[in-house]
Parts: sequence; structure tokens; C-alpha cells
Amino acid sequence: MSSLSAVMSRLDNGFDHSLEHLFDLLRIPSISTDPAYRKDCAAAAKWLADDLKSIGFSARAVRTPGHPMVLAKHHKAKGAPTVLFYGHYDVQPVDPLSLWNHPPFEPRIVNAATGRQIAGRGTSDDKGQLMTFVEACRAWKAETGNLPLNVTILFEGEEESGSPSLVPFLKEYRKELQADIALVCDTGMWDRETPAISAALRGLLGMELTLHAANRDLHSGMYGSAARNPIQLLATILAGMRDAEGRVTLPGFYDGVPELPAAQLKQWKKLGFSGKEFLGEVGLKIPAGEKDRSVLEMIWARPTFEINGIYGGYTGEGFKTVIPAQASAKVSFRLVGRQDPKKIKQAFKKYVKSCLPADCSVSYHEEGDGSPGIQLDIERPAVRRAAQALKDEWGRETALTAMGGSIPIVGHFQNILGMQSMLTGFALDDDRIHSPNEKYQLESFRKGQRSWARIIGALAQ
Amino acid sequence: MSSLSAVMSRLDNGFDHSLEHLFDLLRIPSISTDPAYRKDCAAAAKWLADDLKSIGFSARAVRTPGHPMVLAKHHKAKGAPTVLFYGHYDVQPVDPLSLWNHPPFEPRIVNAATGRQIAGRGTSDDKGQLMTFVEACRAWKAETGNLPLNVTILFEGEEESGSPSLVPFLKEYRKELQADIALVCDTGMWDRETPAISAALRGLLGMELTLHAANRDLHSGMYGSAARNPIQLLATILAGMRDAEGRVTLPGFYDGVPELPAAQLKQWKKLGFSGKEFLGEVGLKIPAGEKDRSVLEMIWARPTFEINGIYGGYTGEGFKTVIPAQASAKVSFRLVGRQDPKKIKQAFKKYVKSCLPADCSVSYHEEGDGSPGIQLDIERPAVRRAAQALKDEWGRETALTAMGGSIPIVGHFQNILGMQSMLTGFALDDDRIHSPNEKYQLESFRKGQRSWARIIGALAQ
Repeated sequence: MSSLSAVMSRLDNGFDHSLEHLFDLLRIPSISTDPAYRKDCAAAAKWLADDLKSIGFSARAVRTPGHPMVLAKHHKAKGAPTVLFYGHYDVQPVDPLSLWNHPPFEPRIVNAATGRQIAGRGTSDDKGQLMTFVEACRAWKAETGNLPLNVTILFEGEEESGSPSLVPFLKEYRKELQADIALVCDTGMWDRETPAISAALRGLLGMELTLHAANRDLHSGMYGSAARNPIQLLATILAGMRDAEGRVTLPGFYDGVPELPAAQLKQWKKLGFSGKEFLGEVGLKIPAGEKDRSVLEMIWARPTFEINGIYGGYTGEGFKTVIPAQASAKVSFRLVGRQDPKKIKQAFKKYVKSCLPADCSVSYHEEGDGSPGIQLDIERPAVRRAAQALKDEWGRETALTAMGGSIPIVGHFQNILGMQSMLTGFALDDDRIHSPNEKYQLESFRKGQRSWARIIGALAQ
Repeated sequence: MSSLSAVMSRLDNGFDHSLEHLFDLLRIPSISTDPAYRKDCAAAAKWLADDLKSIGFSARAVRTPGHPMVLAKHHKAKGAPTVLFYGHYDVQPVDPLSLWNHPPFEPRIVNAATGRQIAGRGTSDDKGQLMTFVEACRAWKAETGNLPLNVTILFEGEEESGSPSLVPFLKEYRKELQADIALVCDTGMWDRETPAISAALRGLLGMELTLHAANRDLHSGMYGSAARNPIQLLATILAGMRDAEGRVTLPGFYDGVPELPAAQLKQWKKLGFSGKEFLGEVGLKIPAGEKDRSVLEMIWARPTFEINGIYGGYTGEGFKTVIPAQASAKVSFRLVGRQDPKKIKQAFKKYVKSCLPADCSVSYHEEGDGSPGIQLDIERPAVRRAAQALKDEWGRETALTAMGGSIPIVGHFQNILGMQSMLTGFALDDDRIHSPNEKYQLESFRKGQRSWARIIGALAQ
């Protein structure tokens, strides 16, 4: 039996145990955006460092001004390539809690029409995913006494909160993190049967704006019509960001947005993606984006402006006839091609300012500088080998896709470490990441482990 | 010494006691919009009924499906007119609590540049105001053994939450409530020195709308641009309600809005109102309403559309890249003249529907049917006598003003009881009603009691 076959058998035999092990990690409510869960983030980091040590990694939870980074190394494969594996142990907030079928941090197996699922916050994004790689390493080590590659692991704890500590950390540990390629496991399959490597990612720029009008809340009877209503003003500003054709109206917004090569559009067409089904699955029918673009272009290749949250005035039970002093919105841009997050941030602020009457003002809470879109070189041998390994496991040609979401780390690996990233993962579109009732298919966790075992073997050749 | 002089002396001598008594009522957190304070509303009603009994009224707290009505009668003045006095014992919510200088339900006297003030929720709106009348009755009764008028009192507990029980109650108790005129004490002075009787009121129509898009919250990376963002849609709908000239755009909205007679505009001009000062006091400079109207017209004689609250998506600490399933706004209209709240509600719903893509829907939480604007007959002898009584107390001609706020009870008294209302009160514009740090001038409470003692005497003639 080849080493790989033995590793695969070991994974299959140890699967139930690996699942229990994952549950331990899922039970830690490591919500990075909420300071109340700071200790839980530290606990998750320690749990991972300890687990990696048990495999034979030199591992530690490195302090940052925010949540710790888990940094681990297993470099005992002389002459073999070095890979840097990245995942994140922090998870999204869980509100609204009332919509969860089970408590989000009490993971369990549930039976669904589409197969057995691991239910709980972080199952798919990203604890379940990162543990597929850890389990593959554990099996290789247990079976062969070594890993066939030199492996560095970086687990972040602030991915869901704008990664404030990441850039300084990468700069400080640049040397320790050097590798031939980064493996990023925070993405999904093309569909239930088809593995995928993501070749492009949208960038992200997020910020919160608060409009200030009167110096206190006013009675809408006494002041209504005469006093500026900051919610009305905010609505007008936000409404003006999109035109009736679904385009973002900000001047210069589409500067640097490339037209896709015909070949790429053709390849995507072959994927058999149905915009109707994609939207239908979430109860929608009518694409909201630019009218002259397909749904797949909208989410993979076109930028967008989104309002992620809005609040102002009285929002409690009942009614209050108030004109509030202020109103706020959390907004974000998804960026592609050579769109410059800094220029777009400036253009947005300029636009907002242009909408303000002289007696109103705006303040911003900024979520970092944002990240531009990314395009990967899919012609590299490592990528071709990994694609073949995935095909061997799943029995289907690996799809070379793009991603609508942002994984800023990929840009940072490129800019700070000079390293390209290969993105693969086993999440599915219906995993409800960031939503109540997040899940990860049991099959994703099982075949994900096997896929990484194959990729580790393939990259070592 | 005349009866009136004796009554006035009694009020002056008993003022400190009346203040302590008011504090007892202010300590009861009777917030009607929030079910958590249901018992407190009942406690406030009982407190008032007991107090009126102690004066010699037959009084009771009458159950309703919501909060109780206090109904009291003192009809022992044969041949004298009958008045129906109205006030409300419920108060506005107190959020944001952090902006209060003192706990809102721990009333106290504070010294301000403009004189001594009673600080606390409900001091001005409306507990302090209604107690001015109760104290005047107490003094008349104690001094003369009777009241010179037949007095019916109605204290409502749902004025701040749309008065859901009011119309059925008025219909059921129509006979018991019959009177020659209603006295409504929920309004203010023209300025610190000038008493006022309000001759016109804006009506109010409020509702909450929730837009529904996807069947669950979505990741803005995965779905951004393709999936309809209900906050964006809500912003577009709300932005479309006002044009750049400050006009409400709803078709037919201005039907029934009268142009003011030149004589009335002239009288208002004499009041010496400064729009600049009015807005300046709350930190604003630029009137937000129709550009061809004065600030006084905007708040007294012109209708408006206001957004009183908005919420959707992630509004907590940090950032969440979500496209929410829904977004909501609490909106209201202030109405004048013959604007029909039912037609306007229909027009608004029609407009919202016209903005919805076929895969989105709207649901409403309605705050009753709304109330139209009201115009009172200021030529009635009772009104002239009351205006003279107020002038006698304050030493200034009583201003015959209009009000931007809505007191739906006035419409109901007119439509259900066939009774006109005279609105007078001693609140000031800077009383911060509905806001943190609500206050009532100590002088309002003192001279308010004396004013009512005079009006009671004047109406008995």
C-alpha cells in the first residue's frame, strides 16, 4: 500500500474521532467582533496551538493588540517545497439568536435532505474547513512519521472583524512565514460534486458613517419639516449610490474594472451556473446588479456597493415621534481588477460631503484601508497538481472559479510576503455562513480531509 | 377677599406640598409603548384616581384592552357649565439613557440659567401639566367647599403609543363625557412670558414598514450586487418621498392643504417668531421643508413626512458583511387642513408597492388610522374668557397660535363627542419633551396652577 493509500485509510478509520475533536473547537464562542468574547478567542487559539503541538508542530499562540495568531511549523522534509496554510478560528456574531434551530455553540449532527450536516457557528466558516487540513497532517504524520512537505500554519483570529493585526504581524514575521505557496482554506466547492480552486477574489472596503443634524433628538410635531431629519438625509445619500440600471453612481467607481476575456466568460459558461437557481435558492428572482451583466459576472467579476446595516431614531417596541439627532449606516464595497480602495474611499467621502447641508456633518468609523481585488496565476505547476489531486478525490474536473467574497489575506500574502495563494475549500453555497443555522456537510469534512491528504502528497512530488 | 383671591393664596401657600405630590407621580415609570411597564401605567392611573377621590371627585381607573383610563366627575355646580379636562399620564421611552444627567424617574429641582426646573421624564409631557389643573381644583374645593364648574376629568394612558383604546372608550362613555367644552392641557406657552391658546393642530399618521427580500441573511461577498439589498431598497423608497425643494412627492399629498388667510399670516408675523433662532437653538441653520415657506408655516401650517426610526442588517459593535433579509422604518405624516389620513395611507402604500421588485414584499405595522388636522373656533365666549384669564395671570396678551404636533384627542372629541376643545398649557419649547433631560419650569407649574384657578373661575361666570 502506498503512503497515500495508508493515510487515506487512517483518515477514514479515525473520522468519528476527528469529528468529536472538531466539536470541541466549535464549542468555543470565538466571536472576534465583540469584545465580550475576547477570552474565548484566546481559548480557541490555545486549543489549536496545543492540537498542532500534539501532531509534532512547534506551535504557539502569538499575542497581538487584538486576538492571537496561531503560528506553527513542521519543517522536516528536506528538499521538499514549503507551504503556508492559512485559516481563521474566529467566527461571525450569531444574532438574531431566535432564528437558530439549535444553540450556535452546541454543535451537532443533523439530518437534512441533502445529507448529514454539522450544525453550528463556525462549522463552515472556518473551523470545519481548517480542521480538514489539520486532520490530513495528523494522518500523514501518524502513518509515515513525517510530513512530506515543510508546513507552516497561520490561524488568524480577526478575519471576521477586518484583520486589524494582520498586516503588522505579516511584516514582523515575514521571514518565518516564507513559503513557496500559500494554501488558503476559506472557500467552497463549485457544487456538491465538483471541487474548485478560486482564481479571482473581490476586494473589500468597509466603513460606517454617521450623519449629525440637530444637537439633540427633536419632537417631530414641534420640528417636523423645518428641522433636517438625518434619516431622510442618509436615505437620500444611500439611494443616490445606485442608479435604476443597478450601477454604482460614484464618479470614477468603474475605473480599473476590467472586461473579462471572452475565453474566461466561455469557461464560466461551461460551469452550467444558473442565476435563476442561485437567486431562487434564497427566495429571489430578479438580479439587483447591472442590467447588462449575468448573475455570475455580478458576483464574480463586477464590483458592488452594499449597505450592511442601518440604524437611527427610535427602533424599539411601539412608536416614538422623534426626529433623531443622528443616523448611521455600515456600508461596504466589493472591488475587482485594479479598483483602488483608497480612491474609492475618497470618492465616497467626497460624495457624502457634497450631499450635506451646511448645518449637518458626517463622522466615520473606518474598518481599515480595504483590500483590492486579486487574480491568481492558475498555470503554476502546484496549482495544476492540486487540481488533479482534487479531481482524483471527487471524480470530477476541478472548476477554476472566481469568488465574490473577499479574503484580504490573499492580497497581503502577495504584497507583503511576495507569495501567491491557492484557494480551495469544501464549503457549499447553502452553508449559511454569517447567518443563523450555519452548517458544514459531513461529507465536506470527510472528503475535505482526504483532499488535503492528496494535495499534500501531490505538492511533495 | 374674593373666592378667586383666596384660592390663589391657597395655591401659593401650598406650592411646596403640590410639588412633592407631583414628584410621587413622576417617580412612576409609566412608559406606555413598552409592555415591560404595563404595571407602572396601572399604578399611575390608580395614583391619579385616588388623588381625585381625595378632592371629592367620584373617580376610577377604567380598564381597557391597553392601559387604564382615569375617569372622574365632580358635578355639584347646578346651572354652571360642564367642562371635560383631558391629560395623559403615560410618558415617552427614555432611551438613550446615557444622555440623561439624572435618572429620568428620579425627579428633582435643578437650577438653570433660565430659572429653576423640574427635571425628569413626564415633567412637561404631561404629568406636570395635568397636575396644574388638579391642584387648581383642589384649591377651589378646599377654599369654597365646591367647584364653580361641573368638571369631568379624563386621563389617558396611551397618548404616547397611538391611543389604541381611546376611540372605543369615547364611544362607550360618550354620554358620561358630555360637556360644553373640552380643556386639553398638553400644549405650551408662546414664549416664557406669553400664554397661548392653540387654534390649530397638525394631524398624525404613523406606521412601520418592513421590506422583505431574500429568505435569509446573505453574505455580501457571495451575493453582493446580484441579491436585492432591502436596506438599499428602503433608502430608495424613503429618499423618493421628498424632492430637492423639500416637498413631499406622494401623489395627491397636498390635496386639502389650505393656503392660510392673509390675516392669519399677518397675526403670526406679529408674534415675532424667528425661524433662525428656533432652528439655531437645536444647532441647525437651514430649514428642511418647502423652500417657499417660512419656518413658522412649515411647523404650524404645512404637512410633512418624517422618518422616526430605521433599522436593518448588522447594527452591533464592529462590522458584519451581511445583506439582510429585511429592513424596517417607522414613518409618520403630520397633516393639516382637510388632508385625509386614510387616503394618504393608501397613497403611501401604493407608492411603496410601485417601488418593489416582484421578488420583494412589504409588511406594515400600523399605528391606528391616524388623525386629520384640526382648526378651532377661537370666537367662542369660553375661549375669549379663558384668554382673558390667562392674560390676567401672565400680564401679556394671550397668543392664538397653531401647533405642529398632533393631539388626536381633539379630533376625537370633535367627531365622537361633538365637542370643541380649548388647548392651553404651560410647556416651553426647550422642555425637551420626548428627549433626554425633559424638564418643566418651576414657574410653569406654579403659574399654571394659578392660571387654571382663574380659568375655572372665568368659565363659571
